[in-house]
Amino acid sequence: MNSSNLIETVIDALRCLPGVGPKSARRIAFHLLERDRDGARKLAQALIGAIDGVGRCQQCRTLSESPVCALCANPQRNRQLLCVVETPVDAQAIERSTAYRGLYFVLMGRLSPLDGIGPAEIGLDQLELRLDSEPPIQEVILATNPTVEGETTAHFISELVRKRNIKVTRIAHGVPLGGELEYVDSSTLSHAFSGRHEI
Amino acid sequence: MNSSNLIETVIDALRCLPGVGPKSARRIAFHLLERDRDGARKLAQALIGAIDGVGRCQQCRTLSESPVCALCANPQRNRQLLCVVETPVDAQAIERSTAYRGLYFVLMGRLSPLDGIGPAEIGLDQLELRLDSEPPIQEVILATNPTVEGETTAHFISELVRKRNIKVTRIAHGVPLGGELEYVDSSTLSHAFSGRHEI
Repeated sequence: MNSSNLIETVIDALRCLPGVGPKSARRIAFHLLERDRDGARKLAQALIGAIDGVGRCQQCRTLSESPVCALCANPQRNRQLLCVVETPVDAQAIERSTAYRGLYFVLMGRLSPLDGIGPAEIGLDQLELRLDSEPPIQEVILATNPTVEGETTAHFISELVRKRNIKVTRIAHGVPLGGELEYVDSSTLSHAFSGRHEI
Repeated sequence: MNSSNLIETVIDALRCLPGVGPKSARRIAFHLLERDRDGARKLAQALIGAIDGVGRCQQCRTLSESPVCALCANPQRNRQLLCVVETPVDAQAIERSTAYRGLYFVLMGRLSPLDGIGPAEIGLDQLELRLDSEPPIQEVILATNPTVEGETTAHFISELVRKRNIKVTRIAHGVPLGGELEYVDSSTLSHAFSGRHEI
């Protein structure tokens, strides 16, 4: 039984979702067409709305509907603190979990020369402009992920910041709360003695 | 960091996908907007194309772009054999795996009185019309799933078919190829002695 081309097109298109292979794509396509056309229509409209309406914040590079995102535009935030994260989701996680009241700079990636991602691709020229402008920044907090690329990115940015005599810190990596030392991997454990530390 | 409403709308809309909860929806939404806007746009267009273009085959009830699906319209198929399945995917699986050359009847569900799914919802009136029309059907093969609802549906349809003196068979359920008797559950094993059997 050949399914129609329209259905095959949906199945192919669903492959753009992370973690969806050919079998799940087929299952999802039939689920939507058999049982949830309303949901599928809403999804399509939401996607088109967001693709057309969501750009980048001019200040922090995060995804935003307006030229400057709500957080950068908020006068309550401390403009002398800048937290550098890899993705908007990371910034959201920090917002949810901490009392941080400064601003963010969202790299939208990390340095990865093998993939052709250099300083320009993650907006470091824009970050340098920011560091050199008013109001002066007191502290840059590096909250990139504790992966090889994330650490490299943090190191690279720390050099940029330090040569301007601005304080630069890295969030602490260590034993997660509720974790037991016995079961924590050794590289995590070796990080665990240092808290938030000046680099 | 509040994300924009457009992004939240996408996150909500993604929940229509089977198996996608709030966390995956958020991850997928940011993945699409950060890294794969082309893919997201194609997906939205494919969904809208399929929602508007895909209806039901008048003969077998499967999803189809044309009033009669390619398989029902195919003059090479044996119109005296009718295989009853629950979903279009089941029919595709049979097409891929077997040499069956007859037609299908796709219930698009199964009898489930507790969910309000009765004979009308799975098109049994249409099936009866089909059984009574020309060319006469020689055999109805019941290939619903071996679940409680699937078995009930098969039993219900077998009654409809048998009272017209048409042969009705059920596909065999038993030990899967490569399976070992020792590890097969007892209800599967109890099915395993019967092959395709007349009921």
